[in-house]
Amino acid sequence: MLQQTTALLARTPAVLDALVRGMPEEWTHRGEGAGTWTVFDIVGHLIHGERTDWIPRAKMILQFGDARAFEPFARFAQQRESEGKSLSELLDVFSSLRRGNLTELRALNLQPSDLERRGRHPAFGVVTMGQLVSTWAVHDLTHLHQISRVMAHQYRDFVGPWSAYLGVLKCEGHSG
Amino acid sequence: MLQQTTALLARTPAVLDALVRGMPEEWTHRGEGAGTWTVFDIVGHLIHGERTDWIPRAKMILQFGDARAFEPFARFAQQRESEGKSLSELLDVFSSLRRGNLTELRALNLQPSDLERRGRHPAFGVVTMGQLVSTWAVHDLTHLHQISRVMAHQYRDFVGPWSAYLGVLKCEGHSG
Repeated sequence: MLQQTTALLARTPAVLDALVRGMPEEWTHRGEGAGTWTVFDIVGHLIHGERTDWIPRAKMILQFGDARAFEPFARFAQQRESEGKSLSELLDVFSSLRRGNLTELRALNLQPSDLERRGRHPAFGVVTMGQLVSTWAVHDLTHLHQISRVMAHQYRDFVGPWSAYLGVLKCEGHSG
Repeated sequence: MLQQTTALLARTPAVLDALVRGMPEEWTHRGEGAGTWTVFDIVGHLIHGERTDWIPRAKMILQFGDARAFEPFARFAQQRESEGKSLSELLDVFSSLRRGNLTELRALNLQPSDLERRGRHPAFGVVTMGQLVSTWAVHDLTHLHQISRVMAHQYRDFVGPWSAYLGVLKCEGHSG
């Protein structure tokens, strides 16, 4: 299962490149209204996860088990990461961090039994290594789902009656 | 606006390649339960749209205006298109059809005033060329949104308590 997971994790930078690198800012720098995220914000959020969430938590599980809780993940910290950068620069940073993190993951050489190891989440309590790594992949998918919705939102007023058939325009977001 | 739209339409084949070409079938050949679509089915549906929906309808608007209704789009016709093919073959077909259709669209040489031209949708009645072309792009995004959800569904049981934070797992589909 780890192989199936890393197959997805390894692809996300290329997916984002294909979808948004070099796109007009009408697609990438507009959100869904005040206080919502743009594509640019979402890439910054993914960068922050690469820096502070997945691999550091995997290492904490290996080192401390469930005796010590993870650092809470700052889900809105991307403004600092992104300030003054272009979307292309953020995509470069994300791609490079992801590549490095997958190298680190391979170096941990996790065996099936390691996926049962327990760690401690600051809000949920006991979680496992397998859940952490699976969440890393589904977190990518959550934000790809969000990006397609945020982009579709920019065309909400242009599709006329077809909005009735376009599921993405009915998605309310579910926090991401 | 046509340029912003075609920027997206031109990228979708590469986005799908990056996301799913060569992926383990656990990601691409499983749906969300009985009667739901897999990634493989969705690519077949996109192919069917390239063949029968967007460009044929644009040409009908130019030829007949709102005097004649479009052929209804068979939203479940992909089984015929896909039978006996691999996902890679479908992706090749989609990419080639999309490239050809964008060439046809450019050849129509639509001017801003053409986007106001009226056609007749079999269910909605009067629609415009601009709405049709915008819908083509948002239709891509609807299915990218769906693909990320269908893929995430495969990991629903693996993420443990994190499902509370993963918006894509809360999406109910909204018909696509």
